[in-house]
Amino acid sequence: MTLSRRISHLTGDGSDGWDLFYRARRMVAAGVPVVELTIGEHDIRTDPEILSAMDRAARGGHTGYAMVPGTGGLRDTIAARITERTGVATTRDNILITPGGQSALFSAHHAVCDEGDVALYCDPYYATYPGTLRAVGAVPRAIVTRPETGFQPTAADLGQIPQGARSLLINTPNNPSGVVYSKQTLEAVAACCRDHDLWLISDEVYDTQVWDGAHLSPRTLPGMAERTLVIGSMSKSHAMTGSRVGWIAGPEAAIARLIELATHTTYGVPGYIQDAAEFALNAGPALEDRVAAPFKRRRDLALKLLAGQDVVHPVPPSGAMYLMLDIRATGLSGTAFADALLTDRNIAVMPGESFGTAAAGHVRVAMTVDDDLFATALKTLLEFAKERSI
Amino acid sequence: MTLSRRISHLTGDGSDGWDLFYRARRMVAAGVPVVELTIGEHDIRTDPEILSAMDRAARGGHTGYAMVPGTGGLRDTIAARITERTGVATTRDNILITPGGQSALFSAHHAVCDEGDVALYCDPYYATYPGTLRAVGAVPRAIVTRPETGFQPTAADLGQIPQGARSLLINTPNNPSGVVYSKQTLEAVAACCRDHDLWLISDEVYDTQVWDGAHLSPRTLPGMAERTLVIGSMSKSHAMTGSRVGWIAGPEAAIARLIELATHTTYGVPGYIQDAAEFALNAGPALEDRVAAPFKRRRDLALKLLAGQDVVHPVPPSGAMYLMLDIRATGLSGTAFADALLTDRNIAVMPGESFGTAAAGHVRVAMTVDDDLFATALKTLLEFAKERSI
Repeated sequence: MTLSRRISHLTGDGSDGWDLFYRARRMVAAGVPVVELTIGEHDIRTDPEILSAMDRAARGGHTGYAMVPGTGGLRDTIAARITERTGVATTRDNILITPGGQSALFSAHHAVCDEGDVALYCDPYYATYPGTLRAVGAVPRAIVTRPETGFQPTAADLGQIPQGARSLLINTPNNPSGVVYSKQTLEAVAACCRDHDLWLISDEVYDTQVWDGAHLSPRTLPGMAERTLVIGSMSKSHAMTGSRVGWIAGPEAAIARLIELATHTTYGVPGYIQDAAEFALNAGPALEDRVAAPFKRRRDLALKLLAGQDVVHPVPPSGAMYLMLDIRATGLSGTAFADALLTDRNIAVMPGESFGTAAAGHVRVAMTVDDDLFATALKTLLEFAKERSI
Repeated sequence: MTLSRRISHLTGDGSDGWDLFYRARRMVAAGVPVVELTIGEHDIRTDPEILSAMDRAARGGHTGYAMVPGTGGLRDTIAARITERTGVATTRDNILITPGGQSALFSAHHAVCDEGDVALYCDPYYATYPGTLRAVGAVPRAIVTRPETGFQPTAADLGQIPQGARSLLINTPNNPSGVVYSKQTLEAVAACCRDHDLWLISDEVYDTQVWDGAHLSPRTLPGMAERTLVIGSMSKSHAMTGSRVGWIAGPEAAIARLIELATHTTYGVPGYIQDAAEFALNAGPALEDRVAAPFKRRRDLALKLLAGQDVVHPVPPSGAMYLMLDIRATGLSGTAFADALLTDRNIAVMPGESFGTAAAGHVRVAMTVDDDLFATALKTLLEFAKERSI
C-alpha cells in the first residue's frame, strides 16, 4: 500500500544527519562510557515544585478535556509575560497553547503555507525545520548564512527571495550556532518580510538563555506584530522538555484559525500540565535563571579553555545551550572530526553538517553535562584537534 | 495578512454544528441549572491510582524527552493487548503513540492522503472528521448511512466510491449513533477497501464500551492488516480524556513513516503520561469495566424508560456512551427539538444534524450524568416529545 507523497519525503532523500547521534547511543547501550554532548537536554530534571503543582492539579480533578485553545490562566500568564518583556500589548486571544514547540512550528507553517508554497529558513538550522516545512506540503528553501558574518543573515543574504515565498523561519537565540541575532539583523529580517509580504515565524524557545546582549523579539519591530507568529516553549526555559507544552503568539485572526486547526490535530494539551506551566511561569525569573545558570557557567568555562589555544575557534557563544566550534584548521570536515572524536576519545558532538551547509567544518557542543566532565571533555577535544592539525 | 487556504476552510463554509453546545455553556455560565447531555466526557475523573503512577514516574525522573515513537513499555503493552484481543500478531513496530486520538486521526490521514485526494467517511460522524480530512488537504466525501439500516453502511452504500478516493474512515462502536458495526457490515467495508485499493482508518476508541454483541476490529479481516490504520486512545476506556494519549496501530512501513511525521509535528508524548497509561492498561479489564459500567447501566435504564412510550424511538444502543433518539414523530427537526428542549426544560442534547445529514430528525443524548439525574432528564425529554407530537 502506498503512502502519501508528502509523508514519504519528509526527511528529504538523504540521511537525517543524525548518524553520529545514533552511533553514540548504540555505544552507550553497549556499555561504552561516551560523553554525550549531542542533544539540547538539560542535565537536571523538572523542578519538584513544578511536579507538585502538576500532581495537585490532577488530583484536584483537572483530568478532563481542557479547552482546546489552552486554559485561560496559562494563556493570560503567557500574554502578560510577553507584554512585559516585549512591550507589545498581548492578550489571551493572541495565544494558542500547543503540545510543545515542535507542534507550534508545524501549526504555524500549516496556517500560512499551502501545498507548493515556498517556506524559507536560515541555515544552519534546527534539525526538524526542513521536514516540518515539507510536512505542511511547502517547499523548503534555505537562506545560507556564513561564518564570516557570525551566522547572522545579512540584508544581502536576504536579498534573493524566490517567487512564491510565503514565510521566513528564524531562530534567535540560535540552535545550533549559539548566536543571538542583533538588532541590525532583525531589522533586515523585518524589512525582508515587509517587502516580500512574508509571514515571519520566529522561534524564540531559547529566549531565557542569553549570555551577551539581550534577546529582541522581532514582533516588536514596526509593522511586524501583524505578520509574526512567535514560537515559545517551556522546554528550555524551565527544563520541561518532556512535558510538551509550548505556544504560538500572533495576530488574533491567525490564532482563531490556529485554534480550529488544534481542534482537528491535537484537541488541546493536558490541563494539569498547563496548570504546572502556569505555576512555573509565575515562579518568576529566579527559576528561569536557575535553569539557565549552568549553561552560562559552562560557556564562560569554555571561553577560558579556548583562549589557551589557536586551533579551534568558537563562534562567539551569545545564547542557548550550545557551543559552535570552527575546526577547519584541522583540515577535517565537521563530520570526519566528530566521527574520529567519538571513535578515538568516546566524546560525542554533532557535526556542523548535521545542521545544513553553512556550518560545515564546525561541530556543535551541547553544554549539557556537569562542569567538570564538560571541562575535561572540552580539553580532550582541544588536544585532539591540535594533534589532527599538525 | 492572508492565511493558507487549507486552514481558512477547515470547518467548511457554515456553522460547526455546535451552536447548541455553546448556548448551553453560556446558560451554565449565567447560572442556569442546565442538564448537559452533550459531550462524551465521563462524570468520573481519572482514577487516583493512575495519577499516582504518573506522579511516581515524573518524580522518578521521567521528565525529559521521551522517544518519539513512544516508550518501549507502552508500545509493547498496547501491541500485546491488540494481539490478545484481535488475534493479529502485533509488535511495538506496529504502534506509534500519539498525543490523543485526534492526533492519531490527523496523522493517519496525513500518511495516506495527498492534497486533493478524496477521503471518505461515514455520516453520521464525529464532529471533527471532515475538518481533520481538510487539514491534511484531502477532499472529504461522506458515505451517508440511513436510519432504516441502523446507520450501518451497506454494500449498496459503499458501491459508489468516487474517483481519486484514497481512504475510508469508519468508527465502531459509533459516535454519535451508539451502533456497533456487524460482521456483515465490516466485511462489506473490507471488500470495498480491497476492491478500490483504499486505506481503512478504523477509529476504535470506544472498543471497551460494547453492550450488545462484540467489537470486531476490521484489521482482523482477510487482506486488511496491510491496509488498516487503527486509532486507539486511553480517553474513553480509562477516563483519561484530558491526558491526551492515544495510538495508531498499522503496518510497520506505515508506522515508520508516521514516526518521522511525529518527529516533525509533535515530538512525542510526555513520558510520565505514557508510564501512567502503561500502568492503567496493565491494571487489566477490571478497571476498564468499572469505567464502562455507568454507561451500560444508564443504557439499560434508558431502554426501560423508552419502552413505556411510542413517540421517541431509540436507535438500538449497542455501544459507546451515547443514545441516539429518533424524534421525527414530533414533526420537529433534531435542531428544533434540541433548541426547544434547552429553552423550555434546561436540558441540553445534541441535534442529529450536528453530525451530518443522516441523523436528521434525531438527537444524541450523552449518558454522562449520574443515574438519577439522567433518568429524570430522559423522562422530561419524553414528556416534552409527547407534548410536541400531539
